[in-house]
Amino acid sequence: MNRSILKAFEPLFYPKSLAIIGASAEPEKFGNIILSAIVEIGFPGKIYPVNPEGGEIKGLRVYRSLQETPGEVDFAIITIPAPLVWGVLEECLRKGVKGVEILTSGFRERGDPEGKRREEDIARIAGRGMRILGPNCFGVYCPESGLTIMPGYNFSREAGPVGFFSQSGGLCADMGQIAKGLGIRFSKMVSYGNGCDVAACDLLEYFFTDEKTRVIAGYLEGVEDGPRFLRILKENRGKKPVILWKAGLTATGSRAVMSHTGSLGGSGIVWGSALKQAGVIQVYGVEELIDTLYAFLYLPASAGPGVAVMGGGGAISVAASDSLERLGLMVPLFSPAVLEKLKPSFPPVGNSLKNPVDLGNPMVPPSILQRVMEAAGEDPGIDTLIVIQILYHILFQMRHRMGMEDRPLSQFSFQPGLLKACLKTREKYGKPLILVMPDITTDTGMTDLEIEWRRERDAYQAAGFPVFKSLDRAALALSHFISYQRIKSDSPMGMGGNPQSRASRD
Amino acid sequence: MNRSILKAFEPLFYPKSLAIIGASAEPEKFGNIILSAIVEIGFPGKIYPVNPEGGEIKGLRVYRSLQETPGEVDFAIITIPAPLVWGVLEECLRKGVKGVEILTSGFRERGDPEGKRREEDIARIAGRGMRILGPNCFGVYCPESGLTIMPGYNFSREAGPVGFFSQSGGLCADMGQIAKGLGIRFSKMVSYGNGCDVAACDLLEYFFTDEKTRVIAGYLEGVEDGPRFLRILKENRGKKPVILWKAGLTATGSRAVMSHTGSLGGSGIVWGSALKQAGVIQVYGVEELIDTLYAFLYLPASAGPGVAVMGGGGAISVAASDSLERLGLMVPLFSPAVLEKLKPSFPPVGNSLKNPVDLGNPMVPPSILQRVMEAAGEDPGIDTLIVIQILYHILFQMRHRMGMEDRPLSQFSFQPGLLKACLKTREKYGKPLILVMPDITTDTGMTDLEIEWRRERDAYQAAGFPVFKSLDRAALALSHFISYQRIKSDSPMGMGGNPQSRASRD
Repeated sequence: MNRSILKAFEPLFYPKSLAIIGASAEPEKFGNIILSAIVEIGFPGKIYPVNPEGGEIKGLRVYRSLQETPGEVDFAIITIPAPLVWGVLEECLRKGVKGVEILTSGFRERGDPEGKRREEDIARIAGRGMRILGPNCFGVYCPESGLTIMPGYNFSREAGPVGFFSQSGGLCADMGQIAKGLGIRFSKMVSYGNGCDVAACDLLEYFFTDEKTRVIAGYLEGVEDGPRFLRILKENRGKKPVILWKAGLTATGSRAVMSHTGSLGGSGIVWGSALKQAGVIQVYGVEELIDTLYAFLYLPASAGPGVAVMGGGGAISVAASDSLERLGLMVPLFSPAVLEKLKPSFPPVGNSLKNPVDLGNPMVPPSILQRVMEAAGEDPGIDTLIVIQILYHILFQMRHRMGMEDRPLSQFSFQPGLLKACLKTREKYGKPLILVMPDITTDTGMTDLEIEWRRERDAYQAAGFPVFKSLDRAALALSHFISYQRIKSDSPMGMGGNPQSRASRD
Repeated sequence: MNRSILKAFEPLFYPKSLAIIGASAEPEKFGNIILSAIVEIGFPGKIYPVNPEGGEIKGLRVYRSLQETPGEVDFAIITIPAPLVWGVLEECLRKGVKGVEILTSGFRERGDPEGKRREEDIARIAGRGMRILGPNCFGVYCPESGLTIMPGYNFSREAGPVGFFSQSGGLCADMGQIAKGLGIRFSKMVSYGNGCDVAACDLLEYFFTDEKTRVIAGYLEGVEDGPRFLRILKENRGKKPVILWKAGLTATGSRAVMSHTGSLGGSGIVWGSALKQAGVIQVYGVEELIDTLYAFLYLPASAGPGVAVMGGGGAISVAASDSLERLGLMVPLFSPAVLEKLKPSFPPVGNSLKNPVDLGNPMVPPSILQRVMEAAGEDPGIDTLIVIQILYHILFQMRHRMGMEDRPLSQFSFQPGLLKACLKTREKYGKPLILVMPDITTDTGMTDLEIEWRRERDAYQAAGFPVFKSLDRAALALSHFISYQRIKSDSPMGMGGNPQSRASRD
């Protein structure tokens, strides 16, 4: 592994000073959006707005040109019109700028010779001693250094293990928001747009090398050098999880790629088999991407395919069984010994103690659920526990039944008791536990449930338990997580896996 | 079609008086939950609680036995323990009760000879002049007559076109909540549990006959008479849409079915091809079921497979193209004439006017979107319009940019202007229009967005435009809707279809 790549990317991810060329006081201009975002997220280094008109923006002095800025500039953010970019890059070279991100569009993605020529021109400059991100991108988010992408003023300031690279800046803008409440934190998030210089291969190599990154994820529309990309993946197979959404796999999608970032889409079958061979977890949309990242951040390596599902109501047992089995997971019957221990606690009518354990109604008190959790903990055939909580019934219906509709929903919550039971189970048996809390209310008058939902989710999450909105989503994320455990244990550089999981899937 | 079935089901769906046998004052008992629900939803007829202990519940006199009740009883709801049910059914016969629902469990689903015998005993009584729903069910919800299922005290009081039958009562309880805010309304919703008498075949026949029902949906774990079920479907092919979730199609799911309602699951491949031949829209989960119903309620028959997608941000164009094409839908390029008319309104940089139309950022004002909507309206290759609105960016980010974070989100909403544009487009071109509003915030501090989301959704819905949370969900629902248009036009009793849609899919 080429460790010099860390050094080469240093100015892009960890600049001490930066210039925003095209800085603007008009709120809808890129040159204002990026400046505001970087000021608000709290970039600790020097910020030099540059605009020929001079003046002041957000309390910062505006320099009339890059040459005018005092001291060194490590990194330049360029938001001026496309025809002017080439000239400004030459200025950057003279100033000794080592890293640049070009937010401006109007290059290769135009699909005409003019755009292509402009992009070739700037790519040549990159070869003369600076690394360029973009053009047609939203930039870099790196909480550790205080950098953020174009509209990411309110992204989390906490750094974390996910390295994310994306050809779509809009997806980055969305990912930062979706990730925020889920505790998904980033080492770096890179929107690289057309990728005239820095692109998928370099970023992949960087993330495999970067010690801050433990999980790699990417949104790709095309790849600049397919054989190199696959080689990097194969050389690092099993070293870190790699989750990729390769878009533009259909004919129409491929056409859309051309006008989005000017890449070439490619065929779904070819990409699918190449990525599988290279040990990549392939996903097909933003929800699946986020859910899979979420599973990788919250599940321990011992999460295996033998799943116990418990809860009550909503055709849970049948639907859960179908969903899990379709994804190659298993819902084994409890062993006879465990079942015998469980029986005395439950009336035979209205309960099914086979796995999935359907306790007949959704208002199952935590103390009762705990007995099932212990049974699943003891049973050697069970690797992973899934506990279903339909909050609507537990909270709204319970409160209504007790005739206490003036009280806040949180007073009726099982969450404190259930969290204790989850913690006890984890401590005693060490098996991973996933919560599924479907949100079934849609009515405008019931938004207090959404508020309580997030409060409960935060409490479970803070204790390390992931919470999904549906069993289908939990099952898909779990199946991807388990696939990776197998990739890891199959790989020459893998660090071993869960032998039991592997045996039961082969 | 056997119209006598309407008569036979009259006492189950339109009783004038009912008895709740096993009525209870204890809030967690079935005999209290069902009584409360029926009182609260406002059943207009006579309600006779029956319990040997007598007394009063919810202001109603409790009768010590069914014989004691004054006047006729059309319908009895039975919540007493399983061993006592048979005897009470004999009493019902003597009293002249014509319809019964048995909420009690402890019958066939026990999986032992005792449970089987009990169920056979009660099924025999049904043959002697009464129709029985259940056992092991949650009952009937019929807003027109004021009946509701076990926990459905707050279901909508409005009647609508959906006839829904389900072996899972829990699913009915959930469906009522999910449907509520989406404006999905029911003619009847029937939880029939083990289905010892009334089951899938009868209910299917009823819903095909019932003039109040225009869309049929069902959750099945098994079917009591497969050949009859398929015959009814085939005889009525294309008459009304039929959307079925057949669960228990995997080995594990099939095992779970046995202990849930005691049915036999069956193989996925066999069911899949049989349902397809019979003209059924097959779905695989509650979200897909609801989304499909939603599409059938909001889309006009002219919704065809040529889709124009418009919006900005979030890798919209590429992802949308992939999703639509995978489902057999099309995203045709605009015709040259339409494209030429559109061009002058948009700067060439940062916009892609090919279809999908990606306007670069999510804050596209309604007046701009309207020009794209008109282009799509004029283009003969476009049948259906999808407009994407990422509310987080439009509301939160906009408000932040304008430095007005003390103002409520609704003040920054595009919804009033966009709704006007939607209405104008519909009026002028008559093409169906779908809104997609992804909810990308997860942070606990941002629940005001969820409130605003529902308010906007309600405004679009009230004007007849469906709103989905993701393009993938909209696309799947639309593809099911279009499949049905084809089924309808292929069927001998079909009322014709959209010939253009058909041609373009063949």
